Amino acid sequence: MNTALGVNLSFCVKRWVTPELWAPLVRDRLGLDLVQFSFDLVDPIWPDTILTDIAAELRRVPEEYGVRIHSAFIGLAHYTFNQLLHPDPRIRDYAENWLGRAYRFAAEAGIERVGGPLGAIASRLDGREQENLPDRDYDDLIARMRRLAGEAQNAGLEELYVEPTPLRREWPWTIDQARKMMEDVTGTPVPWRLCPDWGHATFEPLYGRYRASMEDWLRELAPHIGMVHIQQTDFQYDRHWDFTEAGAVDPEAAKAVLRHAGVDDRPVFLEVFYPFERDDRSVLDAVAASVVKLKHAFG
Amino acid sequence: MNTALGVNLSFCVKRWVTPELWAPLVRDRLGLDLVQFSFDLVDPIWPDTILTDIAAELRRVPEEYGVRIHSAFIGLAHYTFNQLLHPDPRIRDYAENWLGRAYRFAAEAGIERVGGPLGAIASRLDGREQENLPDRDYDDLIARMRRLAGEAQNAGLEELYVEPTPLRREWPWTIDQARKMMEDVTGTPVPWRLCPDWGHATFEPLYGRYRASMEDWLRELAPHIGMVHIQQTDFQYDRHWDFTEAGAVDPEAAKAVLRHAGVDDRPVFLEVFYPFERDDRSVLDAVAASVVKLKHAFG
Repeated sequence: MNTALGVNLSFCVKRWVTPELWAPLVRDRLGLDLVQFSFDLVDPIWPDTILTDIAAELRRVPEEYGVRIHSAFIGLAHYTFNQLLHPDPRIRDYAENWLGRAYRFAAEAGIERVGGPLGAIASRLDGREQENLPDRDYDDLIARMRRLAGEAQNAGLEELYVEPTPLRREWPWTIDQARKMMEDVTGTPVPWRLCPDWGHATFEPLYGRYRASMEDWLRELAPHIGMVHIQQTDFQYDRHWDFTEAGAVDPEAAKAVLRHAGVDDRPVFLEVFYPFERDDRSVLDAVAASVVKLKHAFG
Repeated sequence: MNTALGVNLSFCVKRWVTPELWAPLVRDRLGLDLVQFSFDLVDPIWPDTILTDIAAELRRVPEEYGVRIHSAFIGLAHYTFNQLLHPDPRIRDYAENWLGRAYRFAAEAGIERVGGPLGAIASRLDGREQENLPDRDYDDLIARMRRLAGEAQNAGLEELYVEPTPLRREWPWTIDQARKMMEDVTGTPVPWRLCPDWGHATFEPLYGRYRASMEDWLRELAPHIGMVHIQQTDFQYDRHWDFTEAGAVDPEAAKAVLRHAGVDDRPVFLEVFYPFERDDRSVLDAVAASVVKLKHAFG
């Protein structure tokens, strides 16, 4: 089975920020017709009048280039904050409101799915990281996810996504936690699903040298998985390198892993981040070369 | 002359996010009494009622620990966007409003100086980067900087800072551009000054192998320099490593560079960023070890 391949617009951050800029690149330079929008290009907290105009552009321009926006995901800017697990409940409320705005903006732009990481609790003075989220924080998070699914229904979305991250202070970071979370949000008006990332499930400093495995995540959570993020990485950090870098992820082997887990019918998005100071031309060349390799494996 | 050494709270991002968490770390773990606050800990766009409470805590808690906040700087989250040089003038207005809120929040928290990078123009489809900012964009930027100095005066601030970054799409990225910008904002009600960064001035892919030099920036712009950011780096990217990493910056040599340029009376702030997934304890150990090295050189 061919696996649908798209690209997260993370490579466009602070560079090709409008659809008039990124849509032609995606079609002509990358030869792709599927993207995942990034909230690093548009912050849903911007004033409504601006968002409404941008949403109209997002409905019109990508289509002119034959490019479809599958979903919209939280990027670097919003991920910098503790979001729904900030120690101050008022800032959790703000993050919940931010997501509600993100849903309405996405729906207005014709984007049917929204997702990303959920949040992080604060660190302790001694640097010791707990294995488990305190119950009251977990319960609060689930309550917010259930409310957010209602917001998503009101906005007109079809699916919401949790992206597990490899940090003890974020949630979920293990397969069991992810399964339990999916159970705990069963039956919401808009369903929550999972988006595992190839550089998260394989982060050896957290999971251990012989336990970090994308295959386990995909196989054990298959019914809950709606899409997958792929990146090149060395399993030592969540690198988000492109496939011109030397790393541990082989695209052909990745495709086999998706197939064995029975999830090769879910779309896969390349998500790569570049240092802001790297020059534009080399970024374009590197993303294009990476897409060629991935297409060869997945197409 | 001893050089005042402080730490930018970048190492606390999404970890030790409240003053009750970071102030004891700064005093007891790092043995410092001077910090630069980061807008990655508090987003000035948060609702006023929340900001007012946080500002009151920032006036009270650090002082209890004998820690002084020298200034507040833009962090990763806001730097992710094009800010004052976004192609849409309404988003430039939003960024200007964001800075006005940042000034009022800082003043309310008892912080007298605010700064950071100013913005980035969008990239071109062909990836070619212009050497110069278009005149209309530059003039608009200067007009905004002059207006912002008025906002800063109204808020009660004492100084504003530009942090030059090593990108052709941001501004200023050369010594001559920085000098011209300082001339073009002369006489504003609150003065604009410069904050060079050790990993920006030395970025060889932009400036060239034999031209990238922190010493040149410090010597030629000395009258305009109000503070300096230091980091470990390899001059190949803007690494923001700490001083446990192998790099090209030697703290003793850095101190000599500051002295020769006649700017060793300006405070120096360590600014280090860690992957979000790195564990808390190793971050604390690494920052503490770095501060020991810097104190030895600067103290």
